Amino acid sequence: MLRGQFVLHETPIGVNLVDATMTSELNALFARVEASDSLAVIVFDSADPDFYLAHYDLSDSDEVKHVLAHPEEVHPWTALLARLSSLPVATISSIRGRARGAGSEFLLATDIRFASRERAIVGQFEIGMAAIPGGGPSSRLPGLVGRGRTFEILFGGLDYDGALAEMYGYVNRALPDGDLDGFVDAFASRVASFDLQTIRDIKHFVNLATQRPEAEYKDQMDAFRAAVNRPAQQYIARHLFEAGLQQRSDVERDLPHWVTRFPYRPASGGE
Amino acid sequence: MLRGQFVLHETPIGVNLVDATMTSELNALFARVEASDSLAVIVFDSADPDFYLAHYDLSDSDEVKHVLAHPEEVHPWTALLARLSSLPVATISSIRGRARGAGSEFLLATDIRFASRERAIVGQFEIGMAAIPGGGPSSRLPGLVGRGRTFEILFGGLDYDGALAEMYGYVNRALPDGDLDGFVDAFASRVASFDLQTIRDIKHFVNLATQRPEAEYKDQMDAFRAAVNRPAQQYIARHLFEAGLQQRSDVERDLPHWVTRFPYRPASGGE
Amino acid sequence: MLRGQFVLHETPIGVNLVDATMTSELNALFARVEASDSLAVIVFDSADPDFYLAHYDLSDSDEVKHVLAHPEEVHPWTALLARLSSLPVATISSIRGRARGAGSEFLLATDIRFASRERAIVGQFEIGMAAIPGGGPSSRLPGLVGRGRTFEILFGGLDYDGALAEMYGYVNRALPDGDLDGFVDAFASRVASFDLQTIRDIKHFVNLATQRPEAEYKDQMDAFRAAVNRPAQQYIARHLFEAGLQQRSDVERDLPHWVTRFPYRPASGGE
Repeated sequence: MLRGQFVLHETPIGVNLVDATMTSELNALFARVEASDSLAVIVFDSADPDFYLAHYDLSDSDEVKHVLAHPEEVHPWTALLARLSSLPVATISSIRGRARGAGSEFLLATDIRFASRERAIVGQFEIGMAAIPGGGPSSRLPGLVGRGRTFEILFGGLDYDGALAEMYGYVNRALPDGDLDGFVDAFASRVASFDLQTIRDIKHFVNLATQRPEAEYKDQMDAFRAAVNRPAQQYIARHLFEAGLQQRSDVERDLPHWVTRFPYRPASGGE
Repeated sequence: MLRGQFVLHETPIGVNLVDATMTSELNALFARVEASDSLAVIVFDSADPDFYLAHYDLSDSDEVKHVLAHPEEVHPWTALLARLSSLPVATISSIRGRARGAGSEFLLATDIRFASRERAIVGQFEIGMAAIPGGGPSSRLPGLVGRGRTFEILFGGLDYDGALAEMYGYVNRALPDGDLDGFVDAFASRVASFDLQTIRDIKHFVNLATQRPEAEYKDQMDAFRAAVNRPAQQYIARHLFEAGLQQRSDVERDLPHWVTRFPYRPASGGE
Repeated sequence: MLRGQFVLHETPIGVNLVDATMTSELNALFARVEASDSLAVIVFDSADPDFYLAHYDLSDSDEVKHVLAHPEEVHPWTALLARLSSLPVATISSIRGRARGAGSEFLLATDIRFASRERAIVGQFEIGMAAIPGGGPSSRLPGLVGRGRTFEILFGGLDYDGALAEMYGYVNRALPDGDLDGFVDAFASRVASFDLQTIRDIKHFVNLATQRPEAEYKDQMDAFRAAVNRPAQQYIARHLFEAGLQQRSDVERDLPHWVTRFPYRPASGGE
C-alpha cells in the first residue's frame, strides 16, 4: 500500500492546485506504480484539510501557454487521468476539503471515493467560468450518478457536501470526519493484503465494462480549450483573479458563489 | 429562462393528459427553443397540483386512429421525446402531482427532475393495461435507477412517491413541497445566468455518453402499438373508461389499484 | 407465480451451497419456465434464514474436476446465469441470510432483489481467496451500483447488510425482516396478475438496454479458472476447509474475516 498526499508546492497561501509540478510528480508516481510487482493500493489524501485539490492552475503559466499552442497533442491532463484509471492497483480517494474542477476530475478517475461527511466538498464549477469541464466528468459521472444528476452537477456548478455526494453516488460513502482516516486505512490495508493478480484482474474487467471511448475525453478537452480562448472565460477569470482566485481567500472557499459575480455581457462589449 | 406550464385544454374535469393539443403546443415551443440564440433553461411544471401529466390520452381520438393506421411513421410521441432530449438548453421537470405513463416518459426525457417530497407521484402503470410503455422508459430508466429498479418499476406498475423516487434516482432530488418552487427557481436562474455555448457543450457531451440507440425507442413504441391492438388492452381500457378514466376521479387518483380491478381472462372470452 | 426455495441437499450441517445438484435442479426449473405459457413470476427465497446461498461448492467434486479439465466448454455456472437473466418471466430474489460469491452472482442475475434489512448479507468475498469472481459481477454490478461501488465491493470482499446494499443499489429495497415476505408476496402476486406478453416485452427491452456482451462473462470465468489453478487460491482454500468452510461454522458466518487469516506468502514457499 502506498499513501500519496497532495501538498502545496509553491506558496503558503496556496490552495493545492493541479499544476505542472503536481502533474509531473503524479506521472513519476504512476511510473513507479506501473513498474512495481508488489504495490496493491494507493490512497490519495490531502495535507490541507480545507482543499483536497482546489482546481486546475488557471494562471498564465508556460504549461498553459504550451498546451493551448499545441491542440494536436493529447492534453497532459487527459493523458494523466486515463493513466490513473488504468493503473494496475486499487486507487482510493480519501476526501477532506474542497475538490472542484480538476480536483473532482481527479477523484472521478480513481476507483473508489470515501469522503468526510462534514468536510468534503465536491463539484464542477467550470460552467461558472464559461467553460465545459475538460477532464471528462461528462463521461465519468453518468456511470456513478446517472444521467440526470450528471446534468445537475455540470449545469449548476454547485458544491456537493459529503452527505449529498453519497446519496448521489458521486462518492462511495460519506463517513463522520473523525472516522474517515481509520476507515480508509483499514479498507486499504485489507485490500493490500490480498492477491495482486486478482486486483489486476478485477481492475481489468471492471474497466472493460465501464470505460468510455477515448474520443469522448479528447473531444471534451478540445471543447474546453476552445472555451478558454473565448472572451467570456477570459473576462470572468481576470475578475476572479483580482478578487482572490488561487489564493486562500473567500473566492476559493465559496467559488460557486463568486463565479456568478462577474457576468459577462457580450452586447456591452464585456468591458 | 423560460417556464412552461402544463395546462388543461378542454374540460374542467380533466387531468392534464398528453393529447394532440399538448404535443402540438410542445412542438411549437421546441421550435422556438431551437431557433433562439438566448434561451438557456426551460422549467416544466404543472398548473394542476394533483396531476403533473396524468398519462397519454387513450380516448379513440383522430390522432390515435391515425397513428395506429400508420405504423410505418415514427410515432409523434417518440419523435417529441427524442427532440426534447436534444434541445440545446437545460430542461428541468419540477414535479408536483401525478406523472404516470407518458407523464413519466416526458420527465425522463428532460435533463433534470426535482420533485415535491409530499406531492410528487411518478410511475409507469402501463403493464396494468396489458401494454409495455411505448415512450422509452425501458431505455431511459436504467441510466438513472439501474437495471433492477427499472424492472421493478415496469413490472410492478406501482406509484413512487418523492422520497422513494429520490432514493432510486428516478428524480434528482425530493424537496419539501413548500421549498420546491423556490429551489427550482434559484437553480434555473443560476443556470440561465451562465454561458450559452457551455450549456450546449455539456448537453452535447452528456447526451453522447448516455443516449441509447434510436432503434430501441422505435421498437418499444412498435411493441406498444401491437399491445393496444390486442383484446386484453382494449378490455381493460374500456372498463377503466367506464369507471372514470381520464376524469377527475378515484380511478385517476389511484390508477395502480384500478388497473387490477378488471382482469382479462382470454379463456372465458374476456367478457 | 412460482416460488422456488433453495434447500439443503446433503447434510444438515451444510450452508446452502451452489453445487452440481442445485444447478441441475435450477436448469430443470428453467426448462419448465421456458416451456410454460402461463408462468409470469418466480420468487427465489431460502429455507435457511442464515444462508440464502452461501457460495459455490469449492470441494474437490467430480463436477469441479470436469469443469477445470475442459476450459473450452462454456462453464455451466456462466450458462446458468445467462439463462436465468433471459427467462421470459419476472424473477425476484427475496433475500434473508448470507448470499456471497456465487450466491450474490445468482441474485445479481435475477431481475429484482428485495432484502431483509436486518438479516440479509450480500458480498463478493472471492478476492480473499485470491480469485476474481467468475460469475460476472464485474459486468453486472456497474449497472446497479456504478463503477466506484463495484470496485469497492470486489476489491474489499466485505459483507454488505440490507441497509447499505439498498443505499448502493445492490438490492432494490431493504425491508424490515417481518415485512419482507408479505411485501414480496404482494408484489409478486400483483405482477403475476398482469399480461404475460407485456412481461415478456419488458424483459426483452430492458435486457436489450442493459445486458453486457457475452464475451465479458466468458473471460471473467476463464480468469477465475486460472485463479483456482494457482497456489495462492489452493493454499487459502485448504486452510479455510480445515477451519470449517462449507460447514455451519464461524468461518461461514464471518467469511470476510476468515479469508484474511491465512495469508499466502509465495517467498516463503506458501507454507
